[in-house]
This record gives sequence, structure tokens and C-alpha cells, in this order.
Amino acid sequence: MTLLTDFGRADTYVGQLKGAVLTVCSGAQLVDLTHEIPPGDLLTAAIAWADAVSAFPAGTIHLAVVDPGVGSSRRAIAAEIGDWRFVCPDNGLLTVILQKWTRRRIVELTNSQFWRPEVSPVFHGRDLFGPVAGHWARGTDLAEFGPELSLPPVLLSVPQPVNEGHAIRGQVLMADHFGTLRTNIPATWLADDEDWTIEVAGITIRGLVRCFSDVPPGELCALMGSHGDLEITMNQGRAQDKLSAGRGMPVFGQRTKV
Amino acid sequence: MTLLTDFGRADTYVGQLKGAVLTVCSGAQLVDLTHEIPPGDLLTAAIAWADAVSAFPAGTIHLAVVDPGVGSSRRAIAAEIGDWRFVCPDNGLLTVILQKWTRRRIVELTNSQFWRPEVSPVFHGRDLFGPVAGHWARGTDLAEFGPELSLPPVLLSVPQPVNEGHAIRGQVLMADHFGTLRTNIPATWLADDEDWTIEVAGITIRGLVRCFSDVPPGELCALMGSHGDLEITMNQGRAQDKLSAGRGMPVFGQRTKV
Amino acid sequence: MTLLTDFGRADTYVGQLKGAVLTVCSGAQLVDLTHEIPPGDLLTAAIAWADAVSAFPAGTIHLAVVDPGVGSSRRAIAAEIGDWRFVCPDNGLLTVILQKWTRRRIVELTNSQFWRPEVSPVFHGRDLFGPVAGHWARGTDLAEFGPELSLPPVLLSVPQPVNEGHAIRGQVLMADHFGTLRTNIPATWLADDEDWTIEVAGITIRGLVRCFSDVPPGELCALMGSHGDLEITMNQGRAQDKLSAGRGMPVFGQRTKV
Repeated sequence: MTLLTDFGRADTYVGQLKGAVLTVCSGAQLVDLTHEIPPGDLLTAAIAWADAVSAFPAGTIHLAVVDPGVGSSRRAIAAEIGDWRFVCPDNGLLTVILQKWTRRRIVELTNSQFWRPEVSPVFHGRDLFGPVAGHWARGTDLAEFGPELSLPPVLLSVPQPVNEGHAIRGQVLMADHFGTLRTNIPATWLADDEDWTIEVAGITIRGLVRCFSDVPPGELCALMGSHGDLEITMNQGRAQDKLSAGRGMPVFGQRTKV
Repeated sequence: MTLLTDFGRADTYVGQLKGAVLTVCSGAQLVDLTHEIPPGDLLTAAIAWADAVSAFPAGTIHLAVVDPGVGSSRRAIAAEIGDWRFVCPDNGLLTVILQKWTRRRIVELTNSQFWRPEVSPVFHGRDLFGPVAGHWARGTDLAEFGPELSLPPVLLSVPQPVNEGHAIRGQVLMADHFGTLRTNIPATWLADDEDWTIEVAGITIRGLVRCFSDVPPGELCALMGSHGDLEITMNQGRAQDKLSAGRGMPVFGQRTKV
Repeated sequence: MTLLTDFGRADTYVGQLKGAVLTVCSGAQLVDLTHEIPPGDLLTAAIAWADAVSAFPAGTIHLAVVDPGVGSSRRAIAAEIGDWRFVCPDNGLLTVILQKWTRRRIVELTNSQFWRPEVSPVFHGRDLFGPVAGHWARGTDLAEFGPELSLPPVLLSVPQPVNEGHAIRGQVLMADHFGTLRTNIPATWLADDEDWTIEVAGITIRGLVRCFSDVPPGELCALMGSHGDLEITMNQGRAQDKLSAGRGMPVFGQRTKV
């Protein structure tokens, strides 16, 4: 089972969530995806979650709790999508995953028999999502947690790139720990790489390279990131700092020879 | 087994502590509560530890190493309290846990046969506490680690709230990752919630809500936190920043209709 | 299996690396050493790795991915050294480990049958090192991953201390989470401790103590750290801040009575 939250690591919230899972399913193997999603940032969470899930074996339960509407009427859901299983609040966290893999089954978590006896309205991770994930890991059938979702799941608006053949328009989605800028442009759109220039923050980059060590230290480059998207990065440096870039900054690709 | 320390995550100290446990008990399941207790901050550790332990199955070994007196004559202890088992230095870390659950048995860790052959005077986590916890997890009886504690365990002074019926006085104990202020006032003291006003940092909050999304974004509110205490929080914002609040800031409750 | 990287914890890279291991070896027990090596800082990684590995049982697989040359022609290697097993890029990460324990066998990871079907040139952790470590944990023989290393492994230049009998010259290697300064001077060189003065940053410290609580709060002291090296530390304070010290700052030991 994997865990993705915005809980941070300074408090014991992640530990308590794990305790709730282990109380139900003592042998569960728990892997942290990240707990440093910016508080309540559903779009970052949805993108990060979709990146990570396919690195895990089929059947893995992926549990995400970024839940600014905890305690309100937002639904709680569990889903089988692609080869994996998912548990989360119904607030858009599954948006990118539902774009990437065929939807199979989503149920609303209404059966309180699988929750903690007392549910705090401000900690559904520990008291509802964790226990449900634990029961699922132990073998409870998805259908027992509640009915099929009557209304479609909540979807976020994810910025979409535009491909005009000789010109591509996209944007920066996020920067990673290394200051690498992840864009929303599929790198395959620029496959015949020598022919492209990429513009971002007033800088022009010619062509894609395979890896950042293909360019000298301190130089910017563009490449296909490990999730298949166009990334702007720097050898031994931080593209994010160099370009003062963040989410939403426009990225243009232009085919130079036709 | 759970772990709570002030070691941080940048060094390999937490890893080495886990290695020491696994060297003794190779199958141990290790869960991090937190490693970001401010260095040497025993009160924060004691509160955080007491919050977290009951989320875990009965019998779980909880190991805490916040140990500003490591290498000195402070005692090392292991205890059975409530439904759980505890290993830590005798410096007050068990204070809140001993307030919440009936004490059963505490021993002093004097039997060096269960320690690492060489004990560094500055890393008892790896060389003493970890190995003892590992042996305990493997089935060694508590009595084998040393004699029953001859003098009572060290207790910290924990700020206590005062309940005068129509007026309650307490204080902020800490702020969490979300900027929510945890007070030392049991939320049940304000149970008939509509009748109370809460004053903190010159701000007055009327009544308790169920969850922060019961108020508009950016608005402060008071509610029962996930550990049963009164918390001051903000929907989509940080109460801590808004109120410039931290440990020790007074919190008053006043019953408005009698 | 242990993991040491410079990936940080904000992204899901560590999670994906673990997913890659678990995809191959579903029961693997994964322990984080640290993921906060400064990006690309091979010397810090090499020192931290050597400190940590011996806390683990013989046979443990230690996987390190600090890999500024990922995707270039730098080799990927696996090794049996001392009592443990190692997987990493061949960029000097094993330098200190090879100084401390007898080298036995190092192979170059050339057999792509043990990698992910698709290898991203910028994420060998997930696509090459993780899968190889997983296969090794499952029982594949080292020799199957590739041929013995034809050229010696890359070694870093590690600052060496000088022992002139009555005078010792070394330097600060790094500061830890507590602001304690780790030097490259073996503490045994100053064993008859009362007779030494230690000079660092213009401050003179007389003799070694056993543990920092041997001196009053706020006072600097020198002691044998938990890895056997001379450390400069402070009781209830941060030597690093007091001395504005970091890597490379000279440390002198002088025998005062002969």
C-alpha cells in the first residue's frame, strides 16, 4: 500500500494513519509516496499521484489524503482503475489517473462498519480512509464498502497543451527537488528532436537532449522526463531558479526546419 | 514498532537506529511517528507521543529517543502502560502517557547483555534503546532487561487548563503543519458549544464548529481536534500565522448564556 | 535493503524507486538511510553511507543513488564489500566503504534483462538500480548482473588527517542535524584525552569529554562521535552556528603535556 498526503512529517499524523491501517491489517507493507504536497493543493497531488502509481505492482492499493473538505459533504471513494486500487476523498485527486487509465469501478465509502468506531470530522485519514484501505488489503470486496458512485467523480481542471503541428503551446506544471521544470507537453510531440526550439521565460533552447549531462554544467536543456513529459532542466544546477519559473509559465515549441 | 526522535532526516541516524533493531529482530515492522521533534524538546515529544500511540494495535512497541542527557546518569527505561509497550530514556517522555493510561510496569534498562557490544555515550538510540526494543519485539520478557524502577519516572511539568464552570483558562500547546493551534483544553469542557466564546490573541471566536469547512475560507474557527482537545484553526489558511501564536499563548473560554 | 539518495521527499521519486524494487521482490524490507544528501554531493554521500551500513545485518543490500552523471557513460555497479552488498553508480559513492572494508567483488551492471523494459536516461534509480537490487534480494547471483569490473571503481578525493604525534591536523567534514561538527580525525588519535587541546575557528577546547552533558549548557566540547571520529559539539546548542563552521574548516590537535 502506498500513501500520499499533505500532512508533512513534523506531526504524527502520517504515523497515526499508518497505525489505523495496521490495526486492521497488521502485515500491510506501507510505502510513502510523499507527504509534502502543499497543503490542500489538489492539482499537484493529482499529477504527482498519477506519475507514481504505475511504478508499483498490479493490485497495489494507493491511498491519498489531501482533503481540504474533510468533514463536509464531499464523498469518500474507493476505485479500481487500470491495474491498481485507489482510496481517497472525491475531490479531484483521481483526475489525471482517470485520464491515463480506463476506469473500471468506483464506489462511495458509505458503510461505516469498516471505519473506526469514532470518526473525527477533521481526521478521516486515520478514521475512515486508513481503515477502509486496511480492510481492502485484507481481502474485503470493494462492493462491501458502499454502492457504485451515482454521480461522476469530481474532476479538476488540468491545463492542457495544444499541438498545432509545427508549434506547440503548453506550460510548466511544477518544479521538482532538483529545480527541474515539468511541463504538460508530451515529449513525443517533439520526437524528431533536432528540429525543435523550445521557448520558456524568454530563453530559447535548441533541440532535446537525452540527459542533462549531455550539456555543460550550468547550461539549460530540454529532455524527455522520466514520466514522458517535456522537462526543462540544467546540468548541475536549478532551471527553476535560473528561470524564476513556476506553475503556469508558458512553454512554446517551434519546429524550425520543415 | 514505532519510532519518535529528534534526529531529523538529513543524517543517517534514524536509519542506523532501525538497523540496530533489525540486527536483533530481522522481521520488525518499523513505522515512523516523527523524527522532527525540535532538538531536545521533551514537552513537544511527550505530547506528540501520547497523541499517536493509541492509533496502533495493542502490544505495539513504541520507541522514543529524544535524549538531551544521553551518556549522563539519566536512566533508560522500558514500560508496559495501557495496551502498549514503551522504550525511552527516563527524562519525562512518558509524562502525558502516564496521565492518560494506567501505569502497569516500568523497568530500568540495566542488563547490558541486550545492548550492542560497544555503546557510544552519544548514541544510545542505536546502541541501547534500539537493540532492547528489538529483543522485546522478538519475545524477551520485560523483566529480563532490568529491575523494576526503584524511584518514580521523571515527569515534566505540563501546563494544565483550569475549568471554573462558566470560564475556562488554558493555553496553546503547539501548532501543527497546517498552522492549527492545539490547546490544552479538553473540547468536552465546551460541549454545549453554541454557548461559548473563545478568546485567543485578542480575537473572539463564537462557538465550536464540527470541521473547518463549516466556515468560509480564511476565517478562524474553534473545533474539537482529532485528539479531543480544543483547536483554533482556519479554513484554507493558517491560524498560527494569523494570530502570531505559539506555545504558551493564553486561551479563554467563556459561557455566554447560562 | 537500505536506500540513500539525493532525491528529497517532496516528489514521489523515492516512492517510485521503492515501487520498482517491490515490483521485482514483493517482500523486500525497505529502510531509508536518508534522501536529503545535497543534490549531487558525492563526498557527503560517500561519508554518510560508510557511517551507516555497518549498523545493518550481514547480507543487507545497500542501494545508493546520487547520480549527477545519470544517462552518461558512467558505469553502474554492484559489489560485495565487507559483510554487505552494494548497488550504485560508479562515481565514487563507495570510496569510504572501500577504505574501511576489504573489497571482495564488484561487477558492472550490463545485463539489461534485470532492468525495467524501458529505461529513462534520467531515472536509473527506478529503471535500473532498483530492479537490480530487487533481483539480488530475491536470490539472483551477483555474477548474472554483469562481468567483473575491468577498470577499478571511481574514487573520490577524501580529505585525510595528518598525525605528527604531538600535533594532529584535520578538518571538518560536515555538520549534522544537531549542529555537531564531524571531523576527519580518528578520536583514538587523541585517546589519552586530558593531554590534548583542540583548536577550531580560533577557539581552543581542552581535552575530550565522554558526552556533551559533561559540560554546562551552551558550552563547546570535543568528544568521540558515534562513528569513532573526533566531533566538536555543544551541550544544548549548535557548535556549527557558534563557530560558523562547515566542510573544510581546519581542526588542530595539540598534545599539551608530553
